[in-house]
Amino acid sequence: MPPIITLTTDFGLADGFVGTMHGVILSICPAARIVDLSHGVAPQGVQEAAFVLAAAVPFFPAGTIHVVVVDPGVGSERRAIAVQTDRAFYVAPDNGVLSEALAQEQVVAAVHLNRPAFWLPIVSHTFHGRDIFAPVGAHLARGVPLRELGDPVSDLLHLPVFQPEREVDGTLLGHVRYIDHFGNLITDVRDRDLASMPQVVVYYKGKRIVGLHPSYAAVPRGELVAVIGSSRRLEIAVREGSAARLLDAQVGDSLGIQDH
Amino acid sequence: MPPIITLTTDFGLADGFVGTMHGVILSICPAARIVDLSHGVAPQGVQEAAFVLAAAVPFFPAGTIHVVVVDPGVGSERRAIAVQTDRAFYVAPDNGVLSEALAQEQVVAAVHLNRPAFWLPIVSHTFHGRDIFAPVGAHLARGVPLRELGDPVSDLLHLPVFQPEREVDGTLLGHVRYIDHFGNLITDVRDRDLASMPQVVVYYKGKRIVGLHPSYAAVPRGELVAVIGSSRRLEIAVREGSAARLLDAQVGDSLGIQDH
Amino acid sequence: MPPIITLTTDFGLADGFVGTMHGVILSICPAARIVDLSHGVAPQGVQEAAFVLAAAVPFFPAGTIHVVVVDPGVGSERRAIAVQTDRAFYVAPDNGVLSEALAQEQVVAAVHLNRPAFWLPIVSHTFHGRDIFAPVGAHLARGVPLRELGDPVSDLLHLPVFQPEREVDGTLLGHVRYIDHFGNLITDVRDRDLASMPQVVVYYKGKRIVGLHPSYAAVPRGELVAVIGSSRRLEIAVREGSAARLLDAQVGDSLGIQDH
Repeated sequence: MPPIITLTTDFGLADGFVGTMHGVILSICPAARIVDLSHGVAPQGVQEAAFVLAAAVPFFPAGTIHVVVVDPGVGSERRAIAVQTDRAFYVAPDNGVLSEALAQEQVVAAVHLNRPAFWLPIVSHTFHGRDIFAPVGAHLARGVPLRELGDPVSDLLHLPVFQPEREVDGTLLGHVRYIDHFGNLITDVRDRDLASMPQVVVYYKGKRIVGLHPSYAAVPRGELVAVIGSSRRLEIAVREGSAARLLDAQVGDSLGIQDH
Repeated sequence: MPPIITLTTDFGLADGFVGTMHGVILSICPAARIVDLSHGVAPQGVQEAAFVLAAAVPFFPAGTIHVVVVDPGVGSERRAIAVQTDRAFYVAPDNGVLSEALAQEQVVAAVHLNRPAFWLPIVSHTFHGRDIFAPVGAHLARGVPLRELGDPVSDLLHLPVFQPEREVDGTLLGHVRYIDHFGNLITDVRDRDLASMPQVVVYYKGKRIVGLHPSYAAVPRGELVAVIGSSRRLEIAVREGSAARLLDAQVGDSLGIQDH
Repeated sequence: MPPIITLTTDFGLADGFVGTMHGVILSICPAARIVDLSHGVAPQGVQEAAFVLAAAVPFFPAGTIHVVVVDPGVGSERRAIAVQTDRAFYVAPDNGVLSEALAQEQVVAAVHLNRPAFWLPIVSHTFHGRDIFAPVGAHLARGVPLRELGDPVSDLLHLPVFQPEREVDGTLLGHVRYIDHFGNLITDVRDRDLASMPQVVVYYKGKRIVGLHPSYAAVPRGELVAVIGSSRRLEIAVREGSAARLLDAQVGDSLGIQDH
């Protein structure tokens, strides 16, 4: 089975930056299969990339190498790291972008990428995706052991993970964690958080959404609906419409969930 | 020759949904070659996807597996289907999105995807692209025969195909079928429909466009031009400009074609 | 090592045009690895594509085949060409889109693509990417020698390459050459042009930007910064912001650089 490398960046697709990373990878490891996970992360959207990555990685074969370059600190003292877990490899800046993915897996080893032998010969100060992260991912794909890529580290930077809170009156206070292409609002409330709430009512932006439905199609077109979405989280959606637009939603917004 | 799977969705590229489908496919069929046909179909744009698919499929090798997920009814009672034709395989919701592609080929067999053995172990109600359509496409790529994927069906849902009409006075009444990235208006009028009209005049939005030109470049910059486009249909374009913007065009608009 | 073909177009990703080119290539050369360099070039953006291509090609393996289809003259008398250099192959319309890439390499041979045996059997007047350029790229990938694809040519069309000028008072007059996805302004001033200017001051749109910094992160968030970017050119950026938006920048704008 050929090695798989995924790429997640905030580069967009217009400038050739992503294609250049493909070129670097194929120069080092011609057999690599490269999957573009997302290049539409908002510029410097570390929290956004953390979510996208964590939602996708469980669906890749064991041993997949995930290269993530959302890197507002490029050229500064922030470290570049590689991490091996019980399922996958990660190559990224040490800015917390791996937090959610690593919370789902067991970390086996982590290194500070400080061995230039595994980078391009000339390293710019502004495009480590091309000069450091892509080459390191490709060397892993060639079979270079993680420990050779740099010195071990044990103090990875973790971002606070979005979590719902339980109020004194039993209300669950959740948050909009991510807004997808369809305008669906994906929250930080997981199906298990709702296990003890047989009849859910969601309060958000003055709306009252009663009950969990099995799918978007369970309500008439244009109506709000609460579902358990594909990442097993509470989602607020509008059937064949955009909940984000209807409710002027923002990531971080709070919503209240009560049992009725 | 490695098996080829194409993907056509309305998912956009920002959320990692498409990359996740790549991961699912490569988990099941590591040898598959995956081609992203379009993920920029408008949300729930079944008719739009039907056009994009039909225009592209003749240019893929025989045996290619086309997975199409534009699926407003996800999680409802709409069926998931797989179809084998004399040239290709299709995996899609049974909502008519295959209508135009199948009209170009001979259907050999069609099945209702009702065998969970070929799906992911856990199936969400909102992301059948990941949980049903991608795995089924990958199993086809591995060589699983179509008939094993589900029970035969013969009543596929077909959408009405856009067609020009001939008026009593001989005017051909066509329609804008698709608007492309350049703002070119692709109609439902085919070159053969114009065979008996040596000197074509197109009437649309108060404009009168005289003659078919061999290419966009046959008129000065910024001028309207009628050509036979790459899918052998009448196209209205503006050289190095956007006919859609100039004429405020919408899919479904009527245009009259007369012989002069 | 499988042959690599890159694609650079102004087609966008929504219409299936790019996926169709993949299908054509895989029909002719199933072993080809296809990399999408950019399909987000502005419509008819020949100069823009020339820049994107030249920045990326040094990072691909020797022998890579670069297919470029930004082609306002499709269907006109403009020639289609293929070029072999000391590092790579290029297939494109002869409209100057290769100018910057070829300026970096040694041209070994160039041909006019006038042998229909290497095209699709039916050639449209509006989609030579599908009907001529993709098939020719795939035949090169299969090992067809360049000279068989057409008659030799020696008069390729070259676009003027953006170049800074030295004023009488020693000011270097540069230009905004390209604006990337982050809103960074990439200029035509190269690091070597600044070698004799130890303390650079950039004047642009009434702003005065003092000094070259090693990276974007060297200044506070939201501030303007001048750096040497990843293509070894002077870049004007805003840390975690968009210089293009802040300064309402356009490609072609002039900027003055003085030693202070």
